[in-house]
This record gives sequence, C-alpha cells and structure tokens, in this order.
Amino acid sequence: MKKSAKPLVGIIMGSDSDWPTLKAAAEACAEFGVPHEVRVVSAHRTPMDMARYASNAQKRGLKVIIAGAGGAAHLPGMVASLTPLPVIGVPIESKALKGMDSLLSIVQMPAGVPVATVAIGNGRNAGLLAVKILATSDSKLQEKIVSFKKRMAEESRAKNKNLVS
Amino acid sequence: MKKSAKPLVGIIMGSDSDWPTLKAAAEACAEFGVPHEVRVVSAHRTPMDMARYASNAQKRGLKVIIAGAGGAAHLPGMVASLTPLPVIGVPIESKALKGMDSLLSIVQMPAGVPVATVAIGNGRNAGLLAVKILATSDSKLQEKIVSFKKRMAEESRAKNKNLVS
Amino acid sequence: MKKSAKPLVGIIMGSDSDWPTLKAAAEACAEFGVPHEVRVVSAHRTPMDMARYASNAQKRGLKVIIAGAGGAAHLPGMVASLTPLPVIGVPIESKALKGMDSLLSIVQMPAGVPVATVAIGNGRNAGLLAVKILATSDSKLQEKIVSFKKRMAEESRAKNKNLVS
Amino acid sequence: MKKSAKPLVGIIMGSDSDWPTLKAAAEACAEFGVPHEVRVVSAHRTPMDMARYASNAQKRGLKVIIAGAGGAAHLPGMVASLTPLPVIGVPIESKALKGMDSLLSIVQMPAGVPVATVAIGNGRNAGLLAVKILATSDSKLQEKIVSFKKRMAEESRAKNKNLVS
Amino acid sequence: MKKSAKPLVGIIMGSDSDWPTLKAAAEACAEFGVPHEVRVVSAHRTPMDMARYASNAQKRGLKVIIAGAGGAAHLPGMVASLTPLPVIGVPIESKALKGMDSLLSIVQMPAGVPVATVAIGNGRNAGLLAVKILATSDSKLQEKIVSFKKRMAEESRAKNKNLVS
Amino acid sequence: MKKSAKPLVGIIMGSDSDWPTLKAAAEACAEFGVPHEVRVVSAHRTPMDMARYASNAQKRGLKVIIAGAGGAAHLPGMVASLTPLPVIGVPIESKALKGMDSLLSIVQMPAGVPVATVAIGNGRNAGLLAVKILATSDSKLQEKIVSFKKRMAEESRAKNKNLVS
Amino acid sequence: MKKSAKPLVGIIMGSDSDWPTLKAAAEACAEFGVPHEVRVVSAHRTPMDMARYASNAQKRGLKVIIAGAGGAAHLPGMVASLTPLPVIGVPIESKALKGMDSLLSIVQMPAGVPVATVAIGNGRNAGLLAVKILATSDSKLQEKIVSFKKRMAEESRAKNKNLVS
Amino acid sequence: MKKSAKPLVGIIMGSDSDWPTLKAAAEACAEFGVPHEVRVVSAHRTPMDMARYASNAQKRGLKVIIAGAGGAAHLPGMVASLTPLPVIGVPIESKALKGMDSLLSIVQMPAGVPVATVAIGNGRNAGLLAVKILATSDSKLQEKIVSFKKRMAEESRAKNKNLVS
Repeated sequence: MKKSAKPLVGIIMGSDSDWPTLKAAAEACAEFGVPHEVRVVSAHRTPMDMARYASNAQKRGLKVIIAGAGGAAHLPGMVASLTPLPVIGVPIESKALKGMDSLLSIVQMPAGVPVATVAIGNGRNAGLLAVKILATSDSKLQEKIVSFKKRMAEESRAKNKNLVS
Repeated sequence: MKKSAKPLVGIIMGSDSDWPTLKAAAEACAEFGVPHEVRVVSAHRTPMDMARYASNAQKRGLKVIIAGAGGAAHLPGMVASLTPLPVIGVPIESKALKGMDSLLSIVQMPAGVPVATVAIGNGRNAGLLAVKILATSDSKLQEKIVSFKKRMAEESRAKNKNLVS
Repeated sequence: MKKSAKPLVGIIMGSDSDWPTLKAAAEACAEFGVPHEVRVVSAHRTPMDMARYASNAQKRGLKVIIAGAGGAAHLPGMVASLTPLPVIGVPIESKALKGMDSLLSIVQMPAGVPVATVAIGNGRNAGLLAVKILATSDSKLQEKIVSFKKRMAEESRAKNKNLVS
Repeated sequence: MKKSAKPLVGIIMGSDSDWPTLKAAAEACAEFGVPHEVRVVSAHRTPMDMARYASNAQKRGLKVIIAGAGGAAHLPGMVASLTPLPVIGVPIESKALKGMDSLLSIVQMPAGVPVATVAIGNGRNAGLLAVKILATSDSKLQEKIVSFKKRMAEESRAKNKNLVS
Repeated sequence: MKKSAKPLVGIIMGSDSDWPTLKAAAEACAEFGVPHEVRVVSAHRTPMDMARYASNAQKRGLKVIIAGAGGAAHLPGMVASLTPLPVIGVPIESKALKGMDSLLSIVQMPAGVPVATVAIGNGRNAGLLAVKILATSDSKLQEKIVSFKKRMAEESRAKNKNLVS
Repeated sequence: MKKSAKPLVGIIMGSDSDWPTLKAAAEACAEFGVPHEVRVVSAHRTPMDMARYASNAQKRGLKVIIAGAGGAAHLPGMVASLTPLPVIGVPIESKALKGMDSLLSIVQMPAGVPVATVAIGNGRNAGLLAVKILATSDSKLQEKIVSFKKRMAEESRAKNKNLVS
Repeated sequence: MKKSAKPLVGIIMGSDSDWPTLKAAAEACAEFGVPHEVRVVSAHRTPMDMARYASNAQKRGLKVIIAGAGGAAHLPGMVASLTPLPVIGVPIESKALKGMDSLLSIVQMPAGVPVATVAIGNGRNAGLLAVKILATSDSKLQEKIVSFKKRMAEESRAKNKNLVS
Repeated sequence: MKKSAKPLVGIIMGSDSDWPTLKAAAEACAEFGVPHEVRVVSAHRTPMDMARYASNAQKRGLKVIIAGAGGAAHLPGMVASLTPLPVIGVPIESKALKGMDSLLSIVQMPAGVPVATVAIGNGRNAGLLAVKILATSDSKLQEKIVSFKKRMAEESRAKNKNLVS
C-alpha cells in the first residue's frame, strides 16, 4: 500500500511474514487519510539499510515510524536509536513463545531510547497511535479520532443483540 | 512540579507511591522545557475524577498524557478510552511480580484503544517519548532531541574510561 | 438470556466475543433460579456507559456483578471501583498469552478495591460464586447448593465406569 | 483476634507465618464491625481438622470463609469443596516464586468449586470482599462501604500534596 | 484396568478426562507385572471419598499412590497429607496454562508433606517411578528395571536408522 | 554427616554451595534413623565420577538417591539415567530465575527416566520422601512416619496461640 | 546425512523425533560444504554411549558439536562437560511448555561449562554458528559467510514486492 | 584490561554498569593467555559506533566477539548481523525481570543470524566459550582447556570436605 501523498508514517517490518500483522497498521492510517509507506527493512539481514532508513526518516518528512518484529525483536529499538522521531513497536506473535519474547525485546528499552509499544500482534493499535500522535498538531485529525471513538462506542453497544442464550 | 506555562503534558499516577518512578518523566519534560503538570488520579479510588481528568484533558490544552500504575494497572488504558490524546503508560515495578502484572495490564490493550507502553519502571522514557511526540510539530524541540542524542552518545563513549580490570 | 424477574446478578463483558465464556455464568444462575441480566459494556469502548452501569447497579437492585474481560482486562476492576457490590472477575483466555494477561489484569487489584477472581475461562464458576454469595442470606438457595454439591459428587463417582484400559 | 459476637467470617491460614498477611483481613472485618474468628488450619498438616472446620462452618453460623495459603496452596480450594459457603482465597507471597505458585494453585479451580481469589499478599482485600458479600443482605453495612469508598477517594486526592519534585 | 492380584499401586485421578494421561501409568505397572488399581477420586468434588481412600490406602495394602490432576491440582498433595505412603503426582496438561498451573500446584508442597512430582503429562514416568520404588525391596523387580533400561538403550540406538536427510 | 551404618540413601549435590539446602535432607534421614551418605558429585565438573557413583549405587547397597542441583540442573536426571534406583531431585533456588530453571531442568524428564521432584529449595521434603520410600518395605519406619505426621499435626495446632492481633 | 569427508561437526540429538529440527543444522553445514555426521545419542537412554561419543569427539577430529534436546534437555550440557570442544545447544520446542523448559535446561549452565545456545527450534542457526566457528581459522569459509550474508540481504530486500494490501 | 598483543577477542557491552558481569569474560581470556580488548559500545546510544565496530572487527583481526547487554538487549544480535565472526551473547541480569528479558532478547534470533548465548549473568562462560572456539584451530590452547577441565574436576572433588553437618 503506497500512497501518492508524501508519507508521514513509515511502516516497516523485519520480514514479509510480518505483513499480516502490520497490514492492520497501514489500514488504520488509510482509514484516517494519513499518507504512509510500507517497507521490509530487516535489522538482522539488512542492518545498514535499516540504519539508512532510520537516519533519513526525519529528513524525508516522516513524522512517526511503526516497526514490527518478532522473537529477538530488535528493529523498533534500533530504529529508535537512529532517529529523533517517535517509534511505535509492534511485537509479532512468535511461534514458540507466543510473542512474549517479542514483547520484552521491544518494550524493555533502556533510559534514553523509548519505544512506544503496543499489544502483541496488534498492528491496528500501532496505526491508531500514529494517527493520535499526528493529531496532536492537526485539529481536523483529532476531530476524526473523536468521531471514530463515537462510532466504536456505537458498534460496541450494538453487540448486545448478539447475546443469545 | 507545576510549571507556570500552560501544561502540554499531563503526568498522572494512581498513588503518590508511584512518584519516585514518575518523577523521572517530569524531569525529562523539564529538561526539554516542556510545560507539564503532575497529579495523583486513581482509576480505582477516584474513578470519576479520573474520567473527568481524561475527558477534559484535550480541552484544557494537554497534548499528551503519561500515566503510571502498578499491579492491575488500569489507569493508562482507562484514560486512553476517555481521551483522543495519545497516552503513554508506565508499568510500575510491583512487589510480588516485579511489574510483569503492570506491564501486561497496560500493554495488552484491545484494538481501538492503544496505550504507548514503555519499560517497567522507566519514567524517564515516558517523558522522552512525550517530548518526541510534541517534537513532531515543533522543529526547535526536534533539534533539542537531536542534540540530546549526541550528548547521550558522548556520555556513552566516555564510559570506556570506567572499565578497569 | 433475560429473565422477567428483577435481576440480582448483572453479567457484563467487554465484547460479544466473550459471550461463549460468560454464557456458562448465565446458565449457572439459571440453573439455580437466580434472575440475572447480561450486557455488553466495554470499559475501553464505552467507558461512560460502564461507569453508569456500575454506579447504578446497586440502586437497580443488583446484588452481585460478574464481569468478564481479556487481555488488558480492566472491566472487572473498574466496575469494582464504582460500586459497593461484590464484583466477580472472569479472565477470558486471550490469543497470544492464553489468559495470563487477563488473569493478572483482573486479580492484582490494589488494596481497597477487591475483585473476586475465578479461573481463566471459567464462566461457570463465576455464576456459581454469585449464587453462593446470594445464598449467604437465602437458606433455600443454600440448600440448593448443598444438593448441587451432592449431585456433583455422584456424577464424579459415576465417572469410574469410563476408565477402560 | 477473637470477637465475642458470633463470628460471621472465618479467617484461616495454613501456618502462623501467614498471619502478617491475613491480619489485614481481620483488621478490615474489625473496621466494619464484622465479627470474625481466626484459626490456623493446615490442609497438609491437619487435613481432618480442616475437613471438620469446613464441614461445620455453615452450621456454626459462618457466612464467608477467608483462607490464605502459599506455594502449593490447597487450603482455599479444599475448604471450598467442603462447604456451601463462598470461600475467598489469599495467595501468600512465596519465597522462590513470589506467589505465582500460590496464585495459580488457588485461582485455577475446576468448574463446580469456585474460589474468589484476590491479589498476591492482599489480605486487606480479602477482608473487604467478605464485608461486601455480607453487605448484599445488610443495608447498614452497604452504607458503610459507600462511606469507606468516599473516604478512600478523599485520601487518594490528599496524596497530591506529597508530589514534591 | 483392574488386576485380580492385591493391588500395590493405587492410581487415582480427579476426573475421567485425566485417564488418557494416567493410562500410561497403569500400562507401565502392567508391563512390570505390578498389580494396581485405578479410581476416579476428586479432591474437589468428592473430598471425603478422597480422604477415605487416602486414609485407608496403607491398611488396604497399597504401597504407592499415583495421583494425577490439572489446574489447581490438589489431589496429590491432599492424598499425601492423609497417608504415610509415598505419593507420586502427575501434572495434567491444562487448557490455558498448558500444565504450568498443575505443575506448581503439585510440586511446591510445604516442608513435611512431599509429593514426588513427574513431568507435565508424563503418566508413564509416574508408573515407572512407582515400579522403581517397589523395586527397592524386590530384587526380581529391580532386575526387570535393569533389563528395561537395556531395552530402552537398544531402542534408542536403533533410531539412528530413521535419520534420513 | 557420615553414618557408620551402611548408608541406604545417597545425598549428592553439584557443589558445596548447595549444602545449605541439602543439609535438611540429611537431617530428615537422621531424624528417622536412616543411614545415609553425602557427597559433592558434579554432573558438569566431574561427569565420570558422577557416572561411577550412579552406576555403583545399587551394588553398594544404596536404595534411594537424592540429588540437588541449580540452574541447568542435570545431576538428578543423569543419575536417574544410570541407576535403576529411584532418584529424588531437589531444585536449588538459583540467583536470577529463582529456581524456575532448576525446577524445569529436573522435573521435565522424558518418558522412561523419571525423577521424583520436590519443591524448589525443599531439601527436607527430599529426605522425607526417601524415608517414605524405604518405609514401603519397613513397617517400623512406617510407624515412625505415622508418629511424625501426628507430631506435625500437633505442632500445627499449637501455632494458633501465635495469632495475636 | 553422512558425508564421506572426515566430519568436522557432530550433530547429535536425544531422539529421532528431534530430527526435523536438527536437519536444518545438517543442511546449513552441507550448504557451506562442511563435512558433518548425525547421530541419535540420548543422555538419558544411552548415557554411556553419550559419554563415549563426547569423550572421543576431539580425537576423532570433530571441531564442533551441535546437540539438540527438549524438555529437561541435558544432552548439550553433558556433552560440554565431557569434551574440550565448543558445544552448540538447540532447545527443541516441547509440547506443554513450548521449549521454555528446553531453553532454560540448556542455557543456564554453571560457570566453567558453557553451552552456546541458539533460539528454540532453530536448528539452522546452530549449523550456521558451527560454520562461523570453523571459519575463524578458514578464510575460504569466512568468504562464503560474507557471501551468504549478502545473499540473505538481497533476499530480504526482494521481499518488499510481497507487500500487497 | 587492554593487552599489548593484537586482540583476538573483542568484549563489548552497552554500558559500564555491565562491566562487573563482563569482567569475568576478560579474566577467563587472560587466564588462557588469549589477547582481548574491552569496549563500551552501545547499540542504542551509539548505534553507528557499534556498526563501525562490528563491520571492522574481522579486518582488525578479531576472531570472536563477546557482547553483553540487559533488558531489550540488542547489542549481541546487531553485532552478529554486521560481522561474519561468531558472536557470544551474555544476558545481563536486569532489575525488574531478572534477566529473562535480556535472555529472550539475545537468544531468540531469527534464522540466518545466530548468537551463541550463555547463561544470565555468566560472563565467565562467555570467556571460556571464546577460548574453546579459538582452540578449534590452536592445539596448545586446547591442551590448556583439557588441563583446565582437570583442575576444575579436582576443585570440585575437594569441596567434599566442606560438607559439615
């Protein structure tokens, strides 16, 4: 999913096998009309590509980076070490340890280099968090979030009809 | 720590016993000249105060909320459900389970309501993340972050002299 | 499952996807003739509905609330903070962490706001616990529990015939 | 702590070393004027005493039992299997595993025999939960709980003055 | 599986759903010609049956008891508290927590009441351990164990032929 | 602690730093008059000594082996693979992981080679389990166990007087 | 997979059921032209075969040993105790605990006897690590690794085309 | 500790606070006369220094790299992604999670980029593993390892005299 508008959010992942999780982040951006780009950039297989991507992100006009990774998940933290932008980390659910390894590898960053971590496998929340961050300086976007929250409430209330015993 | 300038970051915690952890968030804001406020607002002991605080945050001009809580840590997620602002959650290190309960209670939010979670006990990173979020629309602040990262690198390099065998 | 008699037990859940687990709570109430109501009330998607539900529960005549939630499971604890009634929490089995996150988010409540937590996914026990609580002031109900325990013992003994080698 | 009034809450523990935790349960009962008794009854060292205690509890007029235990914590569940009364389990913080063993041994009860589990080491919440259960049929007690929650809110608000930077 | 010879090993379980795991214990006994009996005796559903079974086990001529249970697994420890015989505990693999709850509930017994715990779901090892215990006073049986270990070694060596690349 | 009588129980450990835990096993044997020997035999530092010790144990007249080890705790399982005798494993509480590593390394043995595992750090229960095993063919010893259990019950009952509020 | 050239890497496993995991280690060796051998050698079922294998490995010309095991995984550590060669441990994903038991049993070795542990179930990385070790004294092999890393980078970059929304 | 001989082992760590753990690695190298260097190189604070260090390591004549890190421990894996040399990872014991986060962040590397992980906090084993790797092409060093293992066995045997009851 590549937008023609200059992307504000960079969505990166260590492997295309993470795409099913990260796709939901891209969709959330799209839902709010936030231009974004998606890219496979592996911390472990293409470390210098990753360094380049992270180092240039700000200059290229990106405002927020979303990085998903699983297992010994180094991508979000390494990108955070190389850019002044806020970085959102998405722990991918791993095979053996179900994402507990991914979560701890992403969230337990040392003082000085935060990664904004969301729930295991929750690409959608990464996208929404990026939108919320952009909305801190975009009142139109913030209104959209308010509307979104109302819609979400309505949908939640509507679920009552599904309770059949 | 109350600033005279209109606060942009609200730092809240469930109890004053969380202050030693959250203080580092306030200090990080201060370090970057970001006006902020601190408040004890308990999700469990003063739930309606919390709802009021969260519901009014945006109107009052806050841009980011940092919420720290321990154990069954509901404050960050509940605040996130009540405001369109980005919410940063700080898992406080708990007595028995060492913050694993706090971490999971904060990070494992359902789709639709993200909390930007940082490491267990890492108030400083919460503050820095708030600064990074504000810097997405404040180029002066972003320059300060770039400088900060350079200083941090210098300090890291200087630690080599402490390696005595 | 809505009873015509004035409900004594309120069974709530964050989403209709929790209904397969909570249904067993409703069935346990029905089995003992305890009037109850079921409702989707999300702590994260409809926080003010939740606050209203919890705040009015006692006045509406409810005696016990059963709340089920998964992941960062805030519903039981938040309801407990808003009502003087006893609240029973049911940790829903979550996808990645199998309900360990739900369990810790529900059971590790701070002093002052208890949640009576049952086993991961065990809606039936939540229903039975509600019945036991009501039976503390209803000797007929307590007799039914005594009978139920006898039946359960008989059924357990009868299982010996299934041991075929 | 033995009350002259006929006890409504039985507080039991596997060993006197659990008393520092359970004492807070007794104090919570006392705070609300709920008559209670405390007893060392070990599931593993005096199993038949335990069976007797549990089997006679209802006849003796007890309404709720609070049982604390650590490690392979069987006391709450075994008592629950022998009485129709609601049983509250308090996982004692254990030495090696910090109460995770106690918690799982208490909360993961099979369908049919619920134990209302509170947080690791949280004797106070066990006491408060017992009070809430008794209050379902005692409006005076429920008023006291409402007042207690107000006081707790006031104390929480007052903690704001302790935030000194 | 009931043997006509007077049983030396009692194999008990909380529910017939544990039989697929415990069956392997019975088969190991049978393999070594050790007379045994199997019984559903639930700590939680038939606690007094369980107490009777455990209290009479020694008088009835049993030498070892194997008890399997899952979740809040109290059967092995409670039986151990009621008999001077050695008790072997088999943690049944549970649904949500995969037997970690069963393991901790069984193995973490307090000083004075040991349970000889085997691996999660490893009924066969419980049977073999019972045989090894009986063999401490039965040289014929011990010779059989020596032969068994030789056979097991042979079978292990033979597996080399299955390594095809 | 070396007894002049021919030892029936061999108590071994990977390092003398494990002695504070294993000492309680030796004391339990002594309490019941069971002759025993203690030895440092490391699976990792003296593997062939270990193999010799295990291989000769039965011929030397030992009936039961108690092995304590911490971290990647291989001693109990390796000894079990080399002797037909029952082996009791004691997981030593380790520094970082508090014995969870020791416990899993000892208890999760494959089918064919059981280790009778006791609680983390519970040397006393290992000694008592050895006594119970020997008592399966020694009625005097079994009477002593019955008396011991009575004494333990009395001591437990006596602890009631320590409950002071 | 047996090579005609004198093997430099010995790949061993406790059971042929571990072969699907270890096969990837053999394939990695083959990919780099490193002669290797594969063998079932069980620490628990054929301990003396294992001791012989480990003790003779160096004399037979092996340079590195890869050992895979699951559950109470003793093979890598025991082999490491019996040879001066570097030993690589592969934790096999186990049924109940998903390899967490295997990982801790392998990695938590005491000072003096290291095992080079790779990720749960990651046989390929064990093979690659063996190749890297051999390459420390084989510049041709090291060039192959450099090429391999370039190819891996290319393949990673190529995955970008699979991101379709 | 800097050696005049050209270093073969590079010992790096994220912060000087890791030095107490890594010092033991340096001492093990020194014990075997292996020239080595130590350096603070932070993956998160000086990522480009780290990239430079890793990229140049082989050309500078290093044969093995030992990297220690705690929490979200990315240093070992990132270095491994940037050098063809074998990398040994040392999980530093962290404050809240006791090194479980460090361990998983280091060991759970994806296929293609192995890190040879040792036990939490076990710097000494990292040093010994480096020596063993170098010894694969240095028969003198291998003889020293054989002698070292003999000494270790002697010291282990000597510990028997410390068993006083």
